[in-house]
Amino acid sequence: MKLERFQAFSDGIFAILITILVLEFHIPNYQEGHLLTGLLGQWPLLLAYGLSYFYVGTLWLFHHDYFSLLRQIDRNINLLNLLMLFSITLLDYPISLVATALTSRNRQDMQTAFVAYDLVALFISATFFFVYLYLHRHPELKSNPGAASFYTAIKFDPVRSVIMYSLAILATFWSVWLGAFLLVASIIFHFLAYLRMNKRLVRLNEQGG
Amino acid sequence: MKLERFQAFSDGIFAILITILVLEFHIPNYQEGHLLTGLLGQWPLLLAYGLSYFYVGTLWLFHHDYFSLLRQIDRNINLLNLLMLFSITLLDYPISLVATALTSRNRQDMQTAFVAYDLVALFISATFFFVYLYLHRHPELKSNPGAASFYTAIKFDPVRSVIMYSLAILATFWSVWLGAFLLVASIIFHFLAYLRMNKRLVRLNEQGG
Amino acid sequence: MKLERFQAFSDGIFAILITILVLEFHIPNYQEGHLLTGLLGQWPLLLAYGLSYFYVGTLWLFHHDYFSLLRQIDRNINLLNLLMLFSITLLDYPISLVATALTSRNRQDMQTAFVAYDLVALFISATFFFVYLYLHRHPELKSNPGAASFYTAIKFDPVRSVIMYSLAILATFWSVWLGAFLLVASIIFHFLAYLRMNKRLVRLNEQGG
Amino acid sequence: MKLERFQAFSDGIFAILITILVLEFHIPNYQEGHLLTGLLGQWPLLLAYGLSYFYVGTLWLFHHDYFSLLRQIDRNINLLNLLMLFSITLLDYPISLVATALTSRNRQDMQTAFVAYDLVALFISATFFFVYLYLHRHPELKSNPGAASFYTAIKFDPVRSVIMYSLAILATFWSVWLGAFLLVASIIFHFLAYLRMNKRLVRLNEQGG
Repeated sequence: MKLERFQAFSDGIFAILITILVLEFHIPNYQEGHLLTGLLGQWPLLLAYGLSYFYVGTLWLFHHDYFSLLRQIDRNINLLNLLMLFSITLLDYPISLVATALTSRNRQDMQTAFVAYDLVALFISATFFFVYLYLHRHPELKSNPGAASFYTAIKFDPVRSVIMYSLAILATFWSVWLGAFLLVASIIFHFLAYLRMNKRLVRLNEQGG
Repeated sequence: MKLERFQAFSDGIFAILITILVLEFHIPNYQEGHLLTGLLGQWPLLLAYGLSYFYVGTLWLFHHDYFSLLRQIDRNINLLNLLMLFSITLLDYPISLVATALTSRNRQDMQTAFVAYDLVALFISATFFFVYLYLHRHPELKSNPGAASFYTAIKFDPVRSVIMYSLAILATFWSVWLGAFLLVASIIFHFLAYLRMNKRLVRLNEQGG
Repeated sequence: MKLERFQAFSDGIFAILITILVLEFHIPNYQEGHLLTGLLGQWPLLLAYGLSYFYVGTLWLFHHDYFSLLRQIDRNINLLNLLMLFSITLLDYPISLVATALTSRNRQDMQTAFVAYDLVALFISATFFFVYLYLHRHPELKSNPGAASFYTAIKFDPVRSVIMYSLAILATFWSVWLGAFLLVASIIFHFLAYLRMNKRLVRLNEQGG
Repeated sequence: MKLERFQAFSDGIFAILITILVLEFHIPNYQEGHLLTGLLGQWPLLLAYGLSYFYVGTLWLFHHDYFSLLRQIDRNINLLNLLMLFSITLLDYPISLVATALTSRNRQDMQTAFVAYDLVALFISATFFFVYLYLHRHPELKSNPGAASFYTAIKFDPVRSVIMYSLAILATFWSVWLGAFLLVASIIFHFLAYLRMNKRLVRLNEQGG
């Protein structure tokens, strides 16, 4: 498998997923003349959609930068990548779960929905961890010595994410809103980790010139 | 990030969005033997779909021409582009809002639906404005001096669109049909702006040859 | 616009459309224990789906071969192509119309559904005709003299298709089944026309070697 | 048709299909406060989704490796490939059939759903068989003598799969769970066959290197 085709296939899945998220929007039930009220009541959906778009976008950026320093792809990376993409496609479902639960404001249902979102996010980070681990053990796939130090520097990022989503799950049982806060914070943290990683990558490319 | 992969990813999202718009079509409720009546009653959907396809198509052409003169992509352009694509995917939802409201012909609901469409369009133009602004401040991303004059010439296009959609919103509160007219006019104006921009680009490429 | 990116964008839309057609399948209403009866009652959907997949596939092959002999793309071809892709995405809707009407077997509704399918097909062929006409008048877009003769030989194919779909519409008002037969026949005819065109193209490429 | 564009189109369809499978997930009917119970009741859907993702992923890997040794594509391979992709898109439907039937646990309905899945899988393997057969008779499409021995070694893989899915169908009439077991086993067998084929391909590329 050539690196470029591997990337194109992954990019395709990211592009499709990030676009079909919008299909979760449906006309709300509303009384004639009160579409506005119906729409305003959909803020949970807009929120969940916005957050998830931001999350999937960040994951794509991660994926992009992360695999850009590989020299080649082997079968196992390909399989791990399919597992990672599987975990990411699952994100589509908790969007409507969270939106539905936030609309009813039932405490139990919100717990369920947030934990479902957390679990998918935890699964995603776990697959990243597997990929990181595999690449750590197969330095021959990396493009150059600079790449090795790059991969070492970010090695524990997914572990940290797994811990954060686990904490979010635990917190949700204690307080739904704290759990929600930790979930959002973890996703923002993802994004900050991406910015840091990207800075490192740019520096590396400048050195490598 | 290489320019080509950036473009392929964006093209992918445009292609997916413009194609899944058609999923908004659903069999109407109809009495057996009166499917024709049911279908003819769906003209608002066909109209909203046709207009939105035309709009997204125009946005794609804009995107295509606009980024064709870049020399490279940096992280911020990439993020701004993701924000722009986010705003564009949102267009999928107001299609069915507008269609539903036009079907019931309730004045309040039509106001709501048109304003929702206007807001998304305004958001889209705002993201274009951010991109234009950023490129204005980072001439190093542009490919050559000719490109600079190209970008200067079209600098205020998105501002003009933001104003037009704002006027459409205001007008909608006064008269629904005037608002609708301004919305359609703004989209057609987009297209004309594209034609002008494309002419400029072709001339530039001929000179650069 | 580069020819390759034009083709990739079009290929993307074809790939998406031909894949999302399957989303028209929904679990039928059935009594517990009688899913089989429910499924067997969905033969019209399977038929409409299979035919449409075959049709869109043929259109893709046409598109592929047709544009393979161009030297470059100009703005108008790009716009005409967007119009053509618009007409093709519309095909998604009549699939469920035809399936629904065939399921109820109501004569009026079947007429409506078949005519809707015919109209979309007629629109598609009309857009092909516009493209053919435009290329006829802009020989500078074609790659070589052999290409010119290729395009001349197939010039009237879309006209013939427009006539066939018009006849299918007329026939439907007289006899639903004759209309359905003509619709299917026209699509098969499309495919045969593709085979002929492809043969011509292969011969041309061998000469051009 | 160039090999690369043929692969990009096929990859596109695989990427779209494997991503839209997730659209089969819908919020379950649940009493307020019991979303968790509703979610846990959706294990059949998660199972059917996971299995199908795994299956489509495996088919993509197969497709990828299988066509990587071709030198060129002719029209018939293109048509057979469209037929193969048709059979694979059909997989989207039995996912919800199986999930629905497993949820109700009605024996007849489970039989129907499993057999529907088996039939699509059998159809998929049959189209692979046609492709294998065609390539066997057209050695000029293959890239080198090593490729010939590669294709010979795997010639009977699809036949074996056709037999396995046929057995799964027969078994389902005798015992639903044995039928389900054979279906899952056949898909896992697919994956193992892929691993073996990939090993052969890697060895071949090392020799050819």
